[in-house]
Amino acid sequence: MWADLAPVGRAATSGGYFRQPFASAERELAAWFEEQCAARGLRLERDPFGNVAAWWDPPAPPVPGSAVLTGSHLDSVLDGGAYDGPLGVVSALAAIDVLRGRGFVPGRPLGVSVFVEEEGSRFGLACLGSRLAVGATSWEDARALRDRDGVALGDVVPGPGAGERSTLLDGVGAFVELHVEQGRGLVDLDEPVGVASEIWPHGRYRFDFGGEANHAGSTRMEDRHDPMLTYAMTALAANKQARLAGQRATFGRIEVAPNGTNAVASRVTAWLDARASSDAALADLVAAVERQAADRADRDGTTVTVTPESVSGSVGFDLTLHLGGPGHDRWPVLPSQAGHDAGILSAAGIATAMLFVRNPTGVSHAPAESAETADCLAGVTALAGTLERLAR
Amino acid sequence: MWADLAPVGRAATSGGYFRQPFASAERELAAWFEEQCAARGLRLERDPFGNVAAWWDPPAPPVPGSAVLTGSHLDSVLDGGAYDGPLGVVSALAAIDVLRGRGFVPGRPLGVSVFVEEEGSRFGLACLGSRLAVGATSWEDARALRDRDGVALGDVVPGPGAGERSTLLDGVGAFVELHVEQGRGLVDLDEPVGVASEIWPHGRYRFDFGGEANHAGSTRMEDRHDPMLTYAMTALAANKQARLAGQRATFGRIEVAPNGTNAVASRVTAWLDARASSDAALADLVAAVERQAADRADRDGTTVTVTPESVSGSVGFDLTLHLGGPGHDRWPVLPSQAGHDAGILSAAGIATAMLFVRNPTGVSHAPAESAETADCLAGVTALAGTLERLAR
Repeated sequence: MWADLAPVGRAATSGGYFRQPFASAERELAAWFEEQCAARGLRLERDPFGNVAAWWDPPAPPVPGSAVLTGSHLDSVLDGGAYDGPLGVVSALAAIDVLRGRGFVPGRPLGVSVFVEEEGSRFGLACLGSRLAVGATSWEDARALRDRDGVALGDVVPGPGAGERSTLLDGVGAFVELHVEQGRGLVDLDEPVGVASEIWPHGRYRFDFGGEANHAGSTRMEDRHDPMLTYAMTALAANKQARLAGQRATFGRIEVAPNGTNAVASRVTAWLDARASSDAALADLVAAVERQAADRADRDGTTVTVTPESVSGSVGFDLTLHLGGPGHDRWPVLPSQAGHDAGILSAAGIATAMLFVRNPTGVSHAPAESAETADCLAGVTALAGTLERLAR
Repeated sequence: MWADLAPVGRAATSGGYFRQPFASAERELAAWFEEQCAARGLRLERDPFGNVAAWWDPPAPPVPGSAVLTGSHLDSVLDGGAYDGPLGVVSALAAIDVLRGRGFVPGRPLGVSVFVEEEGSRFGLACLGSRLAVGATSWEDARALRDRDGVALGDVVPGPGAGERSTLLDGVGAFVELHVEQGRGLVDLDEPVGVASEIWPHGRYRFDFGGEANHAGSTRMEDRHDPMLTYAMTALAANKQARLAGQRATFGRIEVAPNGTNAVASRVTAWLDARASSDAALADLVAAVERQAADRADRDGTTVTVTPESVSGSVGFDLTLHLGGPGHDRWPVLPSQAGHDAGILSAAGIATAMLFVRNPTGVSHAPAESAETADCLAGVTALAGTLERLAR
């Protein structure tokens, strides 16, 4: 399966992946997924937002609300790695194969899911598919979200008809997501597999810095109102705040107008990605960055306004889901600083757990993201054991 | 004439102008210019690079090399002002009208010129048309220059045939360019018109900051190699260096990869526009910025390389050209921190002068660029007087 996926959406220059939701590479993966499910005789269920689940139904009618779901996503960030998302989908299919090989027969529906636009790299809202599936984001709000080319989400996916909603998760009592680790926790502990205790609260905040465009030669430095300077100081301040407090703050995206070499900028828009170990710590972190941005704007004669684009509170996982998995008592328990669809499902009241597979480089959202085959197979074994107990 | 030009290429939102060379708005102005010249019976001469001169020929054959040229350019920066360029072209045509109204008959060819791509806002090299006309830049180098969409200069203008070159300036002994002032010098002096002593040396330098893309959540701050931080510190250092020394340093253009909200950037490319009062001071300024960028790169575990994309030395003007203009003895003499085609022609050995018209806002390369009608008319009077004496 991994060999099928490897070439799809990979950039020749960087070796990274460009699998934007509802664009060609990601759609090719989605079609591949449906083929794999059909080949296994799984029953396919699609919702109006592009999310899919494929069900292995039990021989007898199940107890309502007892279904067990596993899976991840197939989209990537811009120039992302191979594992973030696809590893969870491939491992879920492989776990089904392992269970069938053992002669296991589920007592409850056991499904493999793919949620769309988990990264938020096209329409700006992370976990968009799962948010829509659980109703945490309304279609009325989401349909108008636009990508960088001005294409709206409502233009690329039909959305629900009148009175319609996603019923994909209606019978689901437990969700398990396997994911490549996105830091070096398992490397430091020398373990191939671990489980998640929680997801840190995190948010995306748009900083709009306004100034006055002017000539880069004839305008004296002291007569300028240059929003690039306010931005630069804010980016440095955010880094320092987060570093001192053991938290995370990143400016990785910026748009400048007019973005000309010989003109002082009139406007800089930059996005802060901030994460912290508690909701209060996140609010404090963002407030501190805002305060320093405002102070510098006063000095520069510029303006700054901050708009939260998405903020997700802390999410805890249900560690009891792993009980009984083979070797589960030695799996280390780690927090996740990255958001996942599992966090959205947990917040919506579904018992949820996550398994991590070791990432030797510790790098994620970049071409250097990695995992050893032996560790991936250990992940499949752990997932199969967990699912076997849950879907018995 | 001004009413003809006002709507062409103006953005409804900002009120600024988008007149990119060889694109529709600028080509509309070029066609308008040729119509105006034809209506005045001027003889049109085009060169292979898109530059144009329109000649008022004397009744008797002129002394070779005695022609007098005036004019400016019709392209704008992105979201630029109305006056930078077009004021010099319109004033040149108006000065011809004034001289004809007085019954003046030239003893030498008197021409009005328009050079293409003065701003360098499309192909990245300022004064591109005049550089090609004097041979300071070769067609072999220039034809491969590409705009942001990947279109090459050689795709939009034919260029010279084998052994061909621009002969537009062959007979020219003097060049006078009228331009809106791009600072507040004449405002402070309370004068409508002034003359240029020199153009400061200036250059454009591409800073390539390289780092390591990574996940914005799971990568600890101390494990990052974030080129955005190196860039931010460099932008602040450039500003401080220039401010302390009374020079100019601007980062107004930046490109980030992958430019995603939840990924640490892998690469930041930013362009430094630097200007100083002497060639040595410019070299010192850029070296100081480079040094501080390299120091910060060491701390961030990133890399920085600096590539000069265009560097122009100091240019002095010939103040004797103004002698005899009406009221010339009261015109204040000011340096220009902005580059102009006049600087290219001067460096190529043509006796050159510049007239400035007061700009109440002092703003340039932005929609707020301005000039009062009375001051523009004073500029036309000054230009007509200067041309009358030069072309007698």
